[in-house]
Order: sequence, then C-alpha cells, then structure tokens
Amino acid sequence: MFRGVSAFPLTPLKNGTFDEQAFTHLLSPVVEAGVDSLGILGSTGSYAYLTVEERARVTRCAVEHAGNIPVIVSIGAMRLDDILRLADDAQTAGVSGVLMAPVSYQRLTDEEVFKLYETVTRQLSVPLCIYDNPATTGFAFSNELLFAVASLPYVGSIKLGRVPEDLSQVRARLPDTVTLGIAGDWRAASALQAGFDVWYSVLAGLFPKAALAIARSGKSTESERLEPLWDLFRRYGSVRVIAAAAEMRGKVATPGLPFPLQAIQGEPREALSAILAELELA
Amino acid sequence: MFRGVSAFPLTPLKNGTFDEQAFTHLLSPVVEAGVDSLGILGSTGSYAYLTVEERARVTRCAVEHAGNIPVIVSIGAMRLDDILRLADDAQTAGVSGVLMAPVSYQRLTDEEVFKLYETVTRQLSVPLCIYDNPATTGFAFSNELLFAVASLPYVGSIKLGRVPEDLSQVRARLPDTVTLGIAGDWRAASALQAGFDVWYSVLAGLFPKAALAIARSGKSTESERLEPLWDLFRRYGSVRVIAAAAEMRGKVATPGLPFPLQAIQGEPREALSAILAELELA
Repeated sequence: MFRGVSAFPLTPLKNGTFDEQAFTHLLSPVVEAGVDSLGILGSTGSYAYLTVEERARVTRCAVEHAGNIPVIVSIGAMRLDDILRLADDAQTAGVSGVLMAPVSYQRLTDEEVFKLYETVTRQLSVPLCIYDNPATTGFAFSNELLFAVASLPYVGSIKLGRVPEDLSQVRARLPDTVTLGIAGDWRAASALQAGFDVWYSVLAGLFPKAALAIARSGKSTESERLEPLWDLFRRYGSVRVIAAAAEMRGKVATPGLPFPLQAIQGEPREALSAILAELELA
Repeated sequence: MFRGVSAFPLTPLKNGTFDEQAFTHLLSPVVEAGVDSLGILGSTGSYAYLTVEERARVTRCAVEHAGNIPVIVSIGAMRLDDILRLADDAQTAGVSGVLMAPVSYQRLTDEEVFKLYETVTRQLSVPLCIYDNPATTGFAFSNELLFAVASLPYVGSIKLGRVPEDLSQVRARLPDTVTLGIAGDWRAASALQAGFDVWYSVLAGLFPKAALAIARSGKSTESERLEPLWDLFRRYGSVRVIAAAAEMRGKVATPGLPFPLQAIQGEPREALSAILAELELA
C-alpha cells in the first residue's frame, strides 16, 4: 500500500467546521484517477487543527468514498491518549494504514521519540508510516533513529522530506518491508528516479492526473514543467498554495484553512492563477 | 504585574492526570517566598499537553492558593476556539494576566501571527504577555512584528528568550505600558542588569528564594554560582531538569511529565543530585 502516488487532499472547512460535501467532491476525481492511496488528514489536511471527533468523522467519510483505494490517516497529536484514540477510531473506520509525525511542543529527544513509536505501534493492527517533518515538529530523525524505529513491528514506510546522500546505504539498513517515501512535491521526480518507492503528494490531492503523469513518466520533464508552482510551494508552504488553488476553483469554501492559517493572497495568488491557467492542470 | 520575578511552576501529573495536592504543595513555598507573580501552565507547566478542561481546573486551583500574588496563565493552543475558551475560563477564574505564544503546527507567517494576536486581544479583559519562543513554536518574532503586536490593546509584556543587541532602541519603540521579560534562567541576571523588567523564571517555580536572591542582588555572582545547573538547563531543557529535581525531592510523582517527555535520567540526573546538594537551594 505504501507505494506509487499517495494523494494528500485538503480537509475543507466551512466556518471552521468540516465541510463533508466539499470533501467528497475533492475525493471523487482523485479516486477516479486511480492514485495508489489516499493520505487523508495529513499536514495538508490540517489534522493538527482538528479535534479527535472531527478527525474520526473525516476518516469515516474518506473510507466510505475511497472505493478500492487504501486510506492512510495521520494520527499525530500532542497527547498519547489522543493518539491512541485516533488510532482506534481509524482502525474501526477501516483504514489501511496510519501515519505519524512526532508532534510535540517541547522538542523531543531521540529516546522520547523512540518510546513514542514503540508505545503507539504496540496498539496497532495496521501498518504505520513514520513521518520525519522537522519544519512542523522541530524534530529531525537521525539515520540511526530511523533504523531503530523502522524495525518496530507494524512500521511499513518512512516519509522523508529529503533524499539521503547515502541512499543505498540507508536502504540497506532498513527492513525490506519498509518503503521509502518522499515529501515536498518539487523533490518527487528526482526522488522516484533515485529509487524512492512512494510520493506522498500534495499535488495529487487536487490535481491527481498531473501527479500521476509525473510519477509514471520516469523523466524529469513533467515535473520541470511545474517549476513555477513548486517555487510557490517552497516559498509559501504547499498547503497555503494548494488551498488557494482549491478556493479559486470553487472546490472549497473561502477561507478554507483553519485560522490563523491563510491561503496565499494578493500577488502570489494572482501569480498562482496565471500559472494554473498556463499549466492546464487537471 | 509583569515585573520582578514571575515563578513558573510545574503542573504535577500522577498517572497522566492533574495532581492537585502536589500542585498546592508546590505553590505554597513559592507564594510564601513572595514572588511578584505566578506564571502557571507555562511551557514548564506542560500547558500544551493538557486539555482545555484540565487547564481550567489547574487555573482555578492556582488562583485559590495564590493569596495576593497575581496569577498569569498561558492560553496558547492550536485552535482559535480553544484559545478563546481558555481566555474565558482564565478570566472567570480570576487571573490577573494571560500569556500566549503563537503555537502552531504549520509555521506561521508574520501576518498570520499578527491576526492571531489581534483576534485574541479583542476578547480580553486582562493584560496579555506575548511569548516569543522559537524553540517550541518554530516562529521567531522580528522586532517590527513585536512592535506591531505590542501596540495592540491589552498587551502588557513581552517574554523574550534573548537580549536584543539594540535594547534601548527596541525599548524606545515599545509602548511605555509594555514591560520586557526574559526567559531562559541562565540569561536572567544579565538581562535584568541590562534593564529587563521581569524574569519569567523556571527556577522560581521550585526554588523561589534562590531566584529572588539572584534578582535582588543586582550582581552576577549569585547567578554564576548556579552555572552547573544552567548548564543542565541548556543541555537538556529546563523542564526536564526541574522535573527531575521535583521528583527527587518528592514534590511530584515520578514520572511527573506528560509522556513521552521525560525528566532527565541516568548520569545527568546523578549530576543534578550532586549539584543540588552542593548549592543548598531552597
């Protein structure tokens, strides 16, 4: 399941609460396009800003509308009891996998992160993807810690925001059952060419065909064509850009992100509008 | 109220829930020592790991046991509705001030942070202390943003983890009604000598007399004496060190921090034990 293109859609909000209708409309073309999995309630899906109850509701809705496509859901939270309840809710809803970043307020130590994954994986009955996201957690996995956590039962994948220089050595020390996935859409084409197994993709959550074209081409040209979009992603954060695209296309209410997060406005938003028209994304 | 020594005690937990008895025992010597304010549910008080309900309970308990000492409480949270409810609960409980860091999962932009403070201060009836804490929020205030946020109604103080090089210029551009406070106990003596108005102190939450002695001496020697302790604070994080000290003295249950956070263990814990014996802190 942790292979190919995993699409990370937005979780649409309307007046601050989950907009189920907009969500099913967002999911439908993604499911039809035949992505390899749905990564709901990821960073792009604002999981960290939603209550445990809201997250359960979003998860049930996604599983219901995913057809045969496996659903992966983020279970990261500050409190262990919330994480365990999110895992329970997700498994009850019928997800195929879960994803977790070491979310914290205080920066965690390696030992604390290991204990967190050890405790959580003990409660799982579906595979887990480790999410290394220093920008949001303040914590960066060392390779050694990745190897240790990846060896825990139920770990099935790692989502990395970088391509390790010593990729073949990293791969050699990971269990065969653990796939490597890339985050940061602008890095996806080169990461896949370097041997990554899966692209955890923001683009695919709104423009699944464009993402599948990049992944299936096996060349860099398809991705290079999107460089103006990647530039906005890097500068303003993927979520603020993809939310603006979804707002402009009427796919989600405006504002679609949880306060105080804002989709890009003003000049970059106008640039995005021109870029989308030029690229003819679908 | 935002002056002198503000003591930031731990929020003791027992089996993961608030230990009210341990908390009142922690507060009692701090109140008796005559600190200038109590900063409850700060980073040291694990606010980010507690539910809104738990935080209301801790706040009521603190106000009840604070005597004439003003209580300041952190209201930071991921969700705006939680922040506003925490502010309401705090004001109903009778706090004298609130403190807020721009807590987020996604790194916020300057504009988002301004809007956050603008929205929250509009709902306040007590003064607010801005908390600039890049280590936990991933967001660092520029001076320009500090000036803008400090000019909002109800802002009464800024808690900074650094002493600006151009302190007198920074001060000149802040409203007269806004005091400057220092975080990071090892910087306190020099910050107070440089003209800071208040020390937001982890030490004072467990060893109030030692903190008051440092603040009142007006010299560096009192603080320099504690350098071995500051070294542990810098290396392991104040909260992990002060929690170990409180555990060792039987003031809180072991483990006293919310999982997966851990008080220091092993060698640094033994070092701390020796340091505390040597320093004869009270």
